[in-house]
Amino acid sequence: MPKKGILERLRDGVVIGDGGFVFQLEKRGYVKAGPWTPEATCENPEAVKQLHRDFLRAGSDVMQALTFYASDTKLDNRGNKAGQMFTGKAINEAACRLAKEVAAEGDALVAGGLSQTPTYLSGKGKKEVQADFQKQVKVFLDNNLDFLICEYFEHVEEIEWAIEVCKATGKPVAGTMCIGPEGDMHGISAGECAVRMAKAGADIVGVNCHFDPFTSLETVRLMKEGLEKAGLKAYLMAQPLAYHTPDAGKQGFIDLPEFPFALEPRICSRWDIQKYARQAYDLGVRYIGGCCGFEPYHIRAVSEELMKERGKVAAATEKHDLWGGGLVMHTKPWVRARAKREFWENIKPASGRPYCPSMSHPDDWGVTAGSKVLMQHSEATSEKEIKELESHAKSKGRK
Amino acid sequence: MPKKGILERLRDGVVIGDGGFVFQLEKRGYVKAGPWTPEATCENPEAVKQLHRDFLRAGSDVMQALTFYASDTKLDNRGNKAGQMFTGKAINEAACRLAKEVAAEGDALVAGGLSQTPTYLSGKGKKEVQADFQKQVKVFLDNNLDFLICEYFEHVEEIEWAIEVCKATGKPVAGTMCIGPEGDMHGISAGECAVRMAKAGADIVGVNCHFDPFTSLETVRLMKEGLEKAGLKAYLMAQPLAYHTPDAGKQGFIDLPEFPFALEPRICSRWDIQKYARQAYDLGVRYIGGCCGFEPYHIRAVSEELMKERGKVAAATEKHDLWGGGLVMHTKPWVRARAKREFWENIKPASGRPYCPSMSHPDDWGVTAGSKVLMQHSEATSEKEIKELESHAKSKGRK
Amino acid sequence: MPKKGILERLRDGVVIGDGGFVFQLEKRGYVKAGPWTPEATCENPEAVKQLHRDFLRAGSDVMQALTFYASDTKLDNRGNKAGQMFTGKAINEAACRLAKEVAAEGDALVAGGLSQTPTYLSGKGKKEVQADFQKQVKVFLDNNLDFLICEYFEHVEEIEWAIEVCKATGKPVAGTMCIGPEGDMHGISAGECAVRMAKAGADIVGVNCHFDPFTSLETVRLMKEGLEKAGLKAYLMAQPLAYHTPDAGKQGFIDLPEFPFALEPRICSRWDIQKYARQAYDLGVRYIGGCCGFEPYHIRAVSEELMKERGKVAAATEKHDLWGGGLVMHTKPWVRARAKREFWENIKPASGRPYCPSMSHPDDWGVTAGSKVLMQHSEATSEKEIKELESHAKSKGRK
Amino acid sequence: MPKKGILERLRDGVVIGDGGFVFQLEKRGYVKAGPWTPEATCENPEAVKQLHRDFLRAGSDVMQALTFYASDTKLDNRGNKAGQMFTGKAINEAACRLAKEVAAEGDALVAGGLSQTPTYLSGKGKKEVQADFQKQVKVFLDNNLDFLICEYFEHVEEIEWAIEVCKATGKPVAGTMCIGPEGDMHGISAGECAVRMAKAGADIVGVNCHFDPFTSLETVRLMKEGLEKAGLKAYLMAQPLAYHTPDAGKQGFIDLPEFPFALEPRICSRWDIQKYARQAYDLGVRYIGGCCGFEPYHIRAVSEELMKERGKVAAATEKHDLWGGGLVMHTKPWVRARAKREFWENIKPASGRPYCPSMSHPDDWGVTAGSKVLMQHSEATSEKEIKELESHAKSKGRK
Repeated sequence: MPKKGILERLRDGVVIGDGGFVFQLEKRGYVKAGPWTPEATCENPEAVKQLHRDFLRAGSDVMQALTFYASDTKLDNRGNKAGQMFTGKAINEAACRLAKEVAAEGDALVAGGLSQTPTYLSGKGKKEVQADFQKQVKVFLDNNLDFLICEYFEHVEEIEWAIEVCKATGKPVAGTMCIGPEGDMHGISAGECAVRMAKAGADIVGVNCHFDPFTSLETVRLMKEGLEKAGLKAYLMAQPLAYHTPDAGKQGFIDLPEFPFALEPRICSRWDIQKYARQAYDLGVRYIGGCCGFEPYHIRAVSEELMKERGKVAAATEKHDLWGGGLVMHTKPWVRARAKREFWENIKPASGRPYCPSMSHPDDWGVTAGSKVLMQHSEATSEKEIKELESHAKSKGRK
Repeated sequence: MPKKGILERLRDGVVIGDGGFVFQLEKRGYVKAGPWTPEATCENPEAVKQLHRDFLRAGSDVMQALTFYASDTKLDNRGNKAGQMFTGKAINEAACRLAKEVAAEGDALVAGGLSQTPTYLSGKGKKEVQADFQKQVKVFLDNNLDFLICEYFEHVEEIEWAIEVCKATGKPVAGTMCIGPEGDMHGISAGECAVRMAKAGADIVGVNCHFDPFTSLETVRLMKEGLEKAGLKAYLMAQPLAYHTPDAGKQGFIDLPEFPFALEPRICSRWDIQKYARQAYDLGVRYIGGCCGFEPYHIRAVSEELMKERGKVAAATEKHDLWGGGLVMHTKPWVRARAKREFWENIKPASGRPYCPSMSHPDDWGVTAGSKVLMQHSEATSEKEIKELESHAKSKGRK
Repeated sequence: MPKKGILERLRDGVVIGDGGFVFQLEKRGYVKAGPWTPEATCENPEAVKQLHRDFLRAGSDVMQALTFYASDTKLDNRGNKAGQMFTGKAINEAACRLAKEVAAEGDALVAGGLSQTPTYLSGKGKKEVQADFQKQVKVFLDNNLDFLICEYFEHVEEIEWAIEVCKATGKPVAGTMCIGPEGDMHGISAGECAVRMAKAGADIVGVNCHFDPFTSLETVRLMKEGLEKAGLKAYLMAQPLAYHTPDAGKQGFIDLPEFPFALEPRICSRWDIQKYARQAYDLGVRYIGGCCGFEPYHIRAVSEELMKERGKVAAATEKHDLWGGGLVMHTKPWVRARAKREFWENIKPASGRPYCPSMSHPDDWGVTAGSKVLMQHSEATSEKEIKELESHAKSKGRK
Repeated sequence: MPKKGILERLRDGVVIGDGGFVFQLEKRGYVKAGPWTPEATCENPEAVKQLHRDFLRAGSDVMQALTFYASDTKLDNRGNKAGQMFTGKAINEAACRLAKEVAAEGDALVAGGLSQTPTYLSGKGKKEVQADFQKQVKVFLDNNLDFLICEYFEHVEEIEWAIEVCKATGKPVAGTMCIGPEGDMHGISAGECAVRMAKAGADIVGVNCHFDPFTSLETVRLMKEGLEKAGLKAYLMAQPLAYHTPDAGKQGFIDLPEFPFALEPRICSRWDIQKYARQAYDLGVRYIGGCCGFEPYHIRAVSEELMKERGKVAAATEKHDLWGGGLVMHTKPWVRARAKREFWENIKPASGRPYCPSMSHPDDWGVTAGSKVLMQHSEATSEKEIKELESHAKSKGRK
């Protein structure tokens, strides 16, 4: 019996996405921060597969193949040697295979993903950028994946080009931008971005990455309003960070000084995520998942919050019990006393860091595609470039 | 060629332990908080094995079999049903096998571990408590593990009994208590605890769990002074939390309201852990690892800080580069500007939580073995017991 | 030689206002929080006079008579007994006299002030409200004060009525509302409020109270834009709180749970105020003072920051030296090392309160003039009313 | 009828001291931080007198003449020009007169005070140091003050010398050191300090300044234990800071980077001070006052907390009402809802400073009397000395 498709699932209920692969695999030791090395699918397939399985158990309905930044141009950017070891094709092939194998262990769909390219950032045109996309999409089609996701785009123009390429395949297409309530990097409003994605052919539109769950839902709300105003219909999708970012500027968490190696104190608790899941659902979002920072237990929290709406329980919930219920088995009586919703729902967790502030100043460079300082190249960053960055940082940057 | 033993390794250099299995497997969805279900070794062996492998890659020299709380009496405590599904023997057997398989993929040793028992907490005597230990130790011997660890004991008397049992096997023995600078739950000083562990036969003594890295090192320092004063020799060991706990009382993080489901803002960064590794080494600690909260990337941080002393590099460092060096490949120039030691060494990370405090009041019930409220039983906690806890909490507890 | 008038001073340079009388006199023990008892001018004239003198020394160019909430209707509101002891006339007379006496010790002007009335809040009409104002204005005229200030109004309609009354006297008139960037309590934008005040006859317009210096300047910026768009001209004025209120909602600090008895951790340092003075000046504000929380040393900070622009030095600066210069005389060497601008300009002062958050949730009742719960009356608040408040607070208020 | 003496008052009940003059007068504009210019008594007598009166109204039973740092040697230290304008005698005379005048307005006693000298800090001997003290004491005797206070000493040896000089007058003598639980600057324990002060002749012993109320009470507790162990009797006294200093090291708040110009976020609320007054009383402290940071409303809080024990009400309480009771007259209903003890007793006030930490690192230079860097001289601090300080600060100081 064929699996029910993504659009049917969205029509009939709520779909849970997966969490953040590159951040989690970085912590597990298989991916490098910065280039976010997608070659992990070839180098350590069992680690990638295990993470897919963790998410499946946690309640994910979609296994997204790990194809983030897996374009040939990215594998060869700024001194990246990955392109000399693996072709983009090999990496994407492996990603598809691993996702499909785990999806088959449950009732999950498999999606292939495109994301923004150094090609666009360096000011190249539509043809060259779409050529990048087509290479990846070909692999997704060869593997007959269930649907396609264009995600992590900062410029609506580039995601339109991506959606076009995907739409041509006949598969359902989702488009999510990594923008906040202020809109895209060229100042186009969130509402307008949603409209343009839908018009380009996206069946599902929304946001992913860059902002915390609550800021992201604010962006989705603006997108929803934009679509309604334009008389367009599309399913809504949210895959935010699992980091608190009330202090992030327009470029999101990338601009915060803690990115990417000191974000720990910002990690959302499972209770934060349950709140997010409820608010997302109430807003009408029907594809609810996560991006960087989302670990399997965060996805489980989404699934537990929406247990009733979904009419099913994730396998990993067997190892949780709702609202800390498992603590009734703890040996210490005062810990058993925490086994209740009222306790966890209202906790204001301390950081244990009395010498640290609660907010940071973002870098706020405010540059975008076309800016000279954003030009990408295949040579490693030179000493001279680093020096220029430092003096630029002093003039523009954090105080 | 036989592997070099633990005592020889400690004599010749520094040994890196592994991180916290139960907390990490809880987040991955395979272990339940509260009973900390060790039956994961039977239920999801591939998940346990993958975590061993993550730690091996990160630089761990020891694979510790997942036998925490895997005594028959614990499997049957307070409504725990695990004892009806699996025997302690089966769980311990599986744990040994998984650890051995991964250890063989590198040059790691395998250790079996004992921890405190509900039997002792309920006021039973030496004979009964040692009977619990002997069952587990038998499995460790049958599997010919390399050495034994008695860990997570709050009462020095109980760990003496455990060390005795282990010592009788002829294997090297490590003893670590989950105590802070204030000493054990009966008011015995840290220095005296170290002396008693060494006299009972421990070759290696120290602390694990319950406190943050820096508090834990303070405890080890007191232990070191105690040993020196008593003219005793033992290798020093530290396997602390990867959570900041400056506000914890005598019972450690268990007493903090955030335990165990809202500890996120307290998680140590990799840079915190590098400081810990350096300070531990300088203090003379030669077995350096972690407990709850320690993820693979934290162990990698220990290994990177001590790279020179160890003369080797962990496999996972290939996916890191020291001090954020991989960021030179990032597309955003201001992120590339963070690719340096000076930046990460001095960062004071914000929590992104302006409505939360930086410290919490611990529960401070201050009860210990023999107290009625600590008596364990195999029945599930009743409604009436919960009610009593709440009124007790109100009178003793957090304001 | 007659003193130069307020409008001439504003035309030629920058005028420094005074600070917050009622909060400071409350701390000194002469005014009661809640009714903010203006009868202090009759009861403890020497205390009021001393505070005028403190501000004069600190650099204030204006002595504002302490006539805040000194209308007969306010003296008799909600169980206030002041109206039975003193007439509004007597209180206003004393206030004028004290301000004039101290002004004569320097080159300061004297201003009389009107503020919002319980009459308006209870839904009464223009005639009744203006009758309240006329009583106070008569005293100001009898004392020949130099100019009039309408301040602390939440509704633009009411301040228009006040400005009208003042304008009729022929004296220069200033109008400042206690609103933030969101505008007045009926949703009228800050820009529109400025336009309406100017059209009603105000020579000087701006904001006072309710928000911190930086939020207040944002409001003034919006007012400035409104005036420019409407082609109107008026001098700009700012007299904000000396409390940090980044978390305040539309009603400002009144809504914060710390109001009015636990605001200490929010008090601005002198360095915060120097930043405010500079930003205010750069924005074009020419009447720069403070409201609640502003103590004499805060006004001195304004005067020191603008020393060059003003071409004069406040008397109290003799007891300060710029940027902590006096510390070169401290006995401790490390304190002497702090005697420099770079140190104080960049300090991020700790709260010493690790169990407290950095932000609060405002009450956000969101009621305004005309709402039943805002009706004022002369009887004391009853037990029943208090009970209703509590249940209302639970449903609407802080979580 | 003669006033009841200090010892009789302490025997029969509790005595309330006054607050901090130099910090409060600095904010009012009459005293310079650093040299803490006691010549204010000659330059602005009415301002000094008003502050005495504020404290009298707030409930102070003692008017302490403003003679802090008013020794001839201090007036001439490090470029201080005060010694060229006023003799120490004139300053002390004026201080006595002002305190006596206000004391006569109520039932307050008048005390003269000695504090530590640059002479001792520079390594001079007993004879020279006592000569400094005798000059001031002569004025106190000429003015027939009621008793003498030796306060703000960091070295027990120096305060012994001061107590000796005072004791010889036949007046009751109090001795308070500005030390914390770690003891004096030469490592003498708090208990031993108390014993030595009592043996030198102090009728009253305790602490003042440098630490927050709660840390200071911990020190007094240690002093109490020391006295009991030695079989000595003395009344206990506490006059702590009104700043939270959980992070201060051995030298107290002087070492914190916020000292003295950015301490605002650390200021205690009136509710903090009520807790302090209760705890002090319960510990057996019978002379309860404050030092730097204590404003009139803080002293009123002491008096309100101990109203029942004292059987009297401070004049300023008329302008307060207990536990925020005056708020029932506020126009906003949600503010009226705060008019209760439960609300204020439990508030955790936010700082409104999300970019600031809650704790600071103290400078921790750890130098003391005899150290070259502490030598005092009458010349102003030179450029060269400042440079040396900076390099020293870098090597020793804050990271």
